[in-house]
Amino acid sequence: MGAKWRLVLGDVMKKIGIADTMFARADMGSLAEKTIKENHDGIKVIRYTVPGIKDLPLASKKLFDSGCDLVIALGMPGGKEIDKMCAHEASTGLINAQLQGGKHIVEVFVHESETENDLELAAIMKGRTVRHSLNAIDLLFHPENLTKRAGTGQRQGGKNAEALTL
Amino acid sequence: MGAKWRLVLGDVMKKIGIADTMFARADMGSLAEKTIKENHDGIKVIRYTVPGIKDLPLASKKLFDSGCDLVIALGMPGGKEIDKMCAHEASTGLINAQLQGGKHIVEVFVHESETENDLELAAIMKGRTVRHSLNAIDLLFHPENLTKRAGTGQRQGGKNAEALTL
Amino acid sequence: MGAKWRLVLGDVMKKIGIADTMFARADMGSLAEKTIKENHDGIKVIRYTVPGIKDLPLASKKLFDSGCDLVIALGMPGGKEIDKMCAHEASTGLINAQLQGGKHIVEVFVHESETENDLELAAIMKGRTVRHSLNAIDLLFHPENLTKRAGTGQRQGGKNAEALTL
Amino acid sequence: MGAKWRLVLGDVMKKIGIADTMFARADMGSLAEKTIKENHDGIKVIRYTVPGIKDLPLASKKLFDSGCDLVIALGMPGGKEIDKMCAHEASTGLINAQLQGGKHIVEVFVHESETENDLELAAIMKGRTVRHSLNAIDLLFHPENLTKRAGTGQRQGGKNAEALTL
Amino acid sequence: MGAKWRLVLGDVMKKIGIADTMFARADMGSLAEKTIKENHDGIKVIRYTVPGIKDLPLASKKLFDSGCDLVIALGMPGGKEIDKMCAHEASTGLINAQLQGGKHIVEVFVHESETENDLELAAIMKGRTVRHSLNAIDLLFHPENLTKRAGTGQRQGGKNAEALTL
Repeated sequence: MGAKWRLVLGDVMKKIGIADTMFARADMGSLAEKTIKENHDGIKVIRYTVPGIKDLPLASKKLFDSGCDLVIALGMPGGKEIDKMCAHEASTGLINAQLQGGKHIVEVFVHESETENDLELAAIMKGRTVRHSLNAIDLLFHPENLTKRAGTGQRQGGKNAEALTL
Repeated sequence: MGAKWRLVLGDVMKKIGIADTMFARADMGSLAEKTIKENHDGIKVIRYTVPGIKDLPLASKKLFDSGCDLVIALGMPGGKEIDKMCAHEASTGLINAQLQGGKHIVEVFVHESETENDLELAAIMKGRTVRHSLNAIDLLFHPENLTKRAGTGQRQGGKNAEALTL
Repeated sequence: MGAKWRLVLGDVMKKIGIADTMFARADMGSLAEKTIKENHDGIKVIRYTVPGIKDLPLASKKLFDSGCDLVIALGMPGGKEIDKMCAHEASTGLINAQLQGGKHIVEVFVHESETENDLELAAIMKGRTVRHSLNAIDLLFHPENLTKRAGTGQRQGGKNAEALTL
Repeated sequence: MGAKWRLVLGDVMKKIGIADTMFARADMGSLAEKTIKENHDGIKVIRYTVPGIKDLPLASKKLFDSGCDLVIALGMPGGKEIDKMCAHEASTGLINAQLQGGKHIVEVFVHESETENDLELAAIMKGRTVRHSLNAIDLLFHPENLTKRAGTGQRQGGKNAEALTL
Repeated sequence: MGAKWRLVLGDVMKKIGIADTMFARADMGSLAEKTIKENHDGIKVIRYTVPGIKDLPLASKKLFDSGCDLVIALGMPGGKEIDKMCAHEASTGLINAQLQGGKHIVEVFVHESETENDLELAAIMKGRTVRHSLNAIDLLFHPENLTKRAGTGQRQGGKNAEALTL
């Protein structure tokens, strides 16, 4: 009976997929999983790790196919010119995967070139991962929370920008 | 009876989706909604706010799936090089979402780098949002109004360009 | 009876869609329509004007959905860096719309930066619009005319290039 | 009886589509056709000429729809910055057309900027067209011939590169 | 009986497709095949060689259509500006082919411009091919091995990057 009850519960639980990479220099995926579990009960998390960011679109698609209602795709593009192109290709693929699957992929990319030292890099990776994991929860359960902050200059992993009045 | 009548009315009313972001530094979404409501009766507006511009293609698709006949997608790409690439990815996705859905997405992007101070930035955001919201109404209800102004150098959020004769 | 006969005739007539923009600084759409009507009998022309070039892919798709056998998409990308990116996004979308619809979209884009003064700009806009409108007629009715000129350095809106022998 | 026999033969013959442009400064299409006919019996060739390289993706799709088993798409992008972007858009479209049709499009592009004079330009156009036409035959009839030359630095229309041992 | 038993076995065996090019200056495809066979029993390998990297998306699709569960796509983009664009187009196509097929394509590209001499180039080609072939095996049979190394700065064909703690 217990087993069956859990199965039924599982079917109605929301599932979030976490797609991350071996290339990134910090374990953003585990932090995203921890943040989600600490901030919302009853979400099933499925991890899927791939070599690099260009593998994330297919990973996200596979997570959708496994029943995920939303995917968080985390990566750290390197600092070279070629890495920027890889990030562009990955982002384009993530948007296509969203249009194909009809569900959100929250992209959490931190470019190695955003900072000049590892300490700051880790701080941005941490901040952006946490903030976007909370955004993911809001997109699934409380979309009205995002509308309340529409046009307020929110920045993930840094100080918010100044808001202007129209 | 009243409830049923409203339901029937709702079915024939045109619906415009407004997709906007928390990243933008001013609430373009609310201004678009206000402009539409002040300029045309009987349009149902559905708001959907996402973190950033790269989330707008999926947001637009979801608004189409909710029955919207047209979507206005508003965003303010930041001033850095990486932000320009994000805007490019978002725009490409918005065009793909249009081809997939068969309906217009009126893109209202104001680049932070278009001006040198916040006052001008707000003015462009305001002007472009209002002008494109009126364009959206014309696209849905009076497409002939656009053809009357074909090739006349219309600019949204600035002075029109000089028209030439062929 | 007359009405019915016209309806039947309409069904077998070829239809060309003309998609153009309010942004362009000259009315290329009307010139394209005039050129087609002066050079071939019995073509039905459908106009569709949109705000800017990034709206042309969806406009073309809608024209295909209205029964057009070919679309001419006319636009004048502005001279700034951002405008070049818009043109790239529009062109990419126009190719996707063609692959989706299985029919030609003859793109007639004149970049504001191609010339240094308005007189030349108008001349190129005129020449390219006329030449491509004639190409559109050939693509629909006389594809063999294009093969006769294969590899001969044809330029639309300027002097042809010198042809080489292999 | 003869007519019927030919029809049956036609059905089992392989068909190669040749898509080329009026823009190119030499008739690469005719050379491709000649090369194919001289090097393999019983291939039906279908020519389709379009104005410029951005029309090649749709031309290729139409050739697939006419029953072609493979398409050779030939073009000569001009030397300006805008021409490079056109080539990029065309190439992207050709890859999409391949994925859509499930068949090869052998792209034979010679950039006007690859050489400094017309004599060399014609030589590259000739060499690359011939070499890629032979590749097309191998892809259809003798794919094992390509695997024999895997990783050997083959260059079409120039000297091969030096091969390295892993 | 033996023949039939092998056929049945073949049906349950995993298949890996190897798509490579004649353009590359070393035979990465054979090395990938050797690495897979030495490191995992019972995988069927199918080779498919094409002229250049822009042919890899369609090659991968054809390998999927032949029943491959995963494709390794190997190539060596040249060092010129135009070659970088080709690599970008190929990578974009490989991501689209993955989303279409729902299966991984492990891209193994070594840019000729990554090193200054042939010795280093061959070393990177060798290292990256071997490492990514092992990744391919893990993706198919032991995805948990990748998650164990999530966010640890893994580099294919060079020294790993320093891992940071969040």
